[in-house]
Amino acid sequence: MKAKIVITPKKAVVDPQGKTVRNALEQMGYQGVAAVHVGKYIEIELAPGTDKGAAQQALNDAAHKFLSNPIIEDYKLEIE
Amino acid sequence: MKAKIVITPKKAVVDPQGKTVRNALEQMGYQGVAAVHVGKYIEIELAPGTDKGAAQQALNDAAHKFLSNPIIEDYKLEIE
Repeated sequence: MKAKIVITPKKAVVDPQGKTVRNALEQMGYQGVAAVHVGKYIEIELAPGTDKGAAQQALNDAAHKFLSNPIIEDYKLEIE
Repeated sequence: MKAKIVITPKKAVVDPQGKTVRNALEQMGYQGVAAVHVGKYIEIELAPGTDKGAAQQALNDAAHKFLSNPIIEDYKLEIE
């Protein structure tokens, strides 16, 4: 079982990495870009037999407490 | 239309961020973690009416050339 956490800057927050990637794509000659957001991706391999509900709760807690900064970032947790 | 690029370190590459997250989860008292990989997530909003094939080609090219380091990282591109 794998858990995936995607952490992205909130829309209202300045995202200098995203701007840099956007500029780089334009300078490569690719014009079709409206906006770029750069965030973090965390993939967690869970031990076999882990309880999905408990994992969800613990990882939500971790994502909120120290994996993301809830003031400027949003996160999305998926367990599959 | 949105393109999503997920960049992760290759399995053979040392991932100190992943180890740190794993240790942090253990110290929080959550034991069900086998491994953690930390990577980057890039979300690209494409302008309306963009051709999907052209976008795929340009972004694959960009991901290979400067968004990832193909020696130590893998990437996955999805356009939806």
